[in-house]
Amino acid sequence: MKAIEVVENNLIISELPIPELKDDEVLIKVKAAGLNRADLAQKKGLYPPPPGASEILGLECSGIIEGIGKKVTSKKVGDEVMALLGGGGYAEFVSCPEFHAINKPKNLDWVESASIPEVYATCWLNLFMEASMTKGEKVVFHAGASGIGTAGIQLAKAFGCESFVTAGSEDKIKKCIDLGASDGEVRSKDIFSKIQSWAPEGVHIILDPVGAEYFENNLGVLGIEGRLIIIGLMGGIETKVNLGHLMIKRQKIIGSTIRARSIDKKNQVMKDLSKKVIPLFESGELKPIVYKALPLSECNEAHAIMESNENIGKIILTLN
Amino acid sequence: MKAIEVVENNLIISELPIPELKDDEVLIKVKAAGLNRADLAQKKGLYPPPPGASEILGLECSGIIEGIGKKVTSKKVGDEVMALLGGGGYAEFVSCPEFHAINKPKNLDWVESASIPEVYATCWLNLFMEASMTKGEKVVFHAGASGIGTAGIQLAKAFGCESFVTAGSEDKIKKCIDLGASDGEVRSKDIFSKIQSWAPEGVHIILDPVGAEYFENNLGVLGIEGRLIIIGLMGGIETKVNLGHLMIKRQKIIGSTIRARSIDKKNQVMKDLSKKVIPLFESGELKPIVYKALPLSECNEAHAIMESNENIGKIILTLN
Repeated sequence: MKAIEVVENNLIISELPIPELKDDEVLIKVKAAGLNRADLAQKKGLYPPPPGASEILGLECSGIIEGIGKKVTSKKVGDEVMALLGGGGYAEFVSCPEFHAINKPKNLDWVESASIPEVYATCWLNLFMEASMTKGEKVVFHAGASGIGTAGIQLAKAFGCESFVTAGSEDKIKKCIDLGASDGEVRSKDIFSKIQSWAPEGVHIILDPVGAEYFENNLGVLGIEGRLIIIGLMGGIETKVNLGHLMIKRQKIIGSTIRARSIDKKNQVMKDLSKKVIPLFESGELKPIVYKALPLSECNEAHAIMESNENIGKIILTLN
Repeated sequence: MKAIEVVENNLIISELPIPELKDDEVLIKVKAAGLNRADLAQKKGLYPPPPGASEILGLECSGIIEGIGKKVTSKKVGDEVMALLGGGGYAEFVSCPEFHAINKPKNLDWVESASIPEVYATCWLNLFMEASMTKGEKVVFHAGASGIGTAGIQLAKAFGCESFVTAGSEDKIKKCIDLGASDGEVRSKDIFSKIQSWAPEGVHIILDPVGAEYFENNLGVLGIEGRLIIIGLMGGIETKVNLGHLMIKRQKIIGSTIRARSIDKKNQVMKDLSKKVIPLFESGELKPIVYKALPLSECNEAHAIMESNENIGKIILTLN
């Protein structure tokens, strides 16, 4: 099959064997695959795939079931699905545990469907399962115009919460507000006083891909029983922490990634998405935010767009 | 009524008005009151009571219902109870929301009953509600011979978990092992290599009253999806944190206190205790660990014992 290989920080199309199918897995003929920031790190050798995962980049796709393992009961050949992957999406075929693939919403095309699994699974896992987000809470998304941000804003709104964002430009802030954020501030400005003005009693949840650089200020604007979820380290790893504030305010700091989670945990996330989130795509309440779709052969250009941070929402690779 | 007042870091018996009763509160004639480390901090002016709470020391008691507010439905005058208090236990009478008082186990005396509410509520809240402790997990209790530690060890065992402790002496370690801990290490030694040997794949939960001094090592011995619960700061407030490890290991740092929690949250904790923990005292599976009981008039001596850290389990004040 055609698949992307990394050669000296460059992506090239190679001929690789079709993945072998385990008894509890499905084989998907990929129609579209989503880009994620983790792909950039993996390309640079900074984020090796977890044990057992494909070495090929790509954490999500849409496509058609091409084969099923002996023990698979929930899928059949020909089903149109979208899937959360441990890796392998940048290829003609990919395999994954059967429950990590869920039915594609009928009203969305392949590109739109490929934009959903990773960011919605990440938001669902972190906002609802890890941070127990409840109606009426105030949530901050740093990098609000990212795939995660544009998903989180919409999810927060759909579930009765208010969201605020920081992002790299006025255009991005405007887009976030169009999607349902209550307000936003450009990253170059004094974002933390702004956050304080949005939530004088403290925000309830912060979903943060920045890490060290924002850490102390994040805890400062977080309210009583607030949850800070660290999902990325774009702003460094090592920082200071004041455990007194943490304890008196009864706050939680949650380190989180989705890729290395157990099969069962991901089953649960995808089951929740299928039941509680996909219907909102079908009704039109949630919208996939696709910035650009490019053919697989232009994957280096796709990566360059993500590296430049120009995108609002997802970048998708298409296959025939 | 007779009650203890703090005068220049000294405890004296004064004559104070009986607390007024709100509609949803009960008035308890105190038979015994437990000491907690927080009392020492409050005495020194370092831990002011939360808004609305009594200025009098004392976070738990046993006693007899003496009066009920207009809206109280679950208690009647004469009921024998033990109660979690926002303050006020070092006195002849104390008031609290009705559901913060639960029925005293029939097989325990007043002293034993007064030793239960604060430490078991703290352990229940933190181990089960905050950290979702599940069967088979490995838990570390620093200060294992404290009230919290001796409660936590027994709870962990009763709910199918394995516990390990650190404590100040061999005697204390021995007592912890008698109570059900699998092993322990004296604080002066290299406790963290020992913890690593107990749980080479990492411990699941650490209940920590130490804070900064243990923080980095605590995170180091915590496994994948481990939870570090900070419930005290005996070893300082400010420290460093490596967010990379936190994220890759998907760990949680949880700051927690019980005293300032909402009435509803405490209702829920005490309801759980009443339903799931008190029956284990009645069956003899859990045992109150009382180090010493002294009359209220000897409360300065009681504080001195706690300050010296000589106690294994709880110190209790008795009233006529």
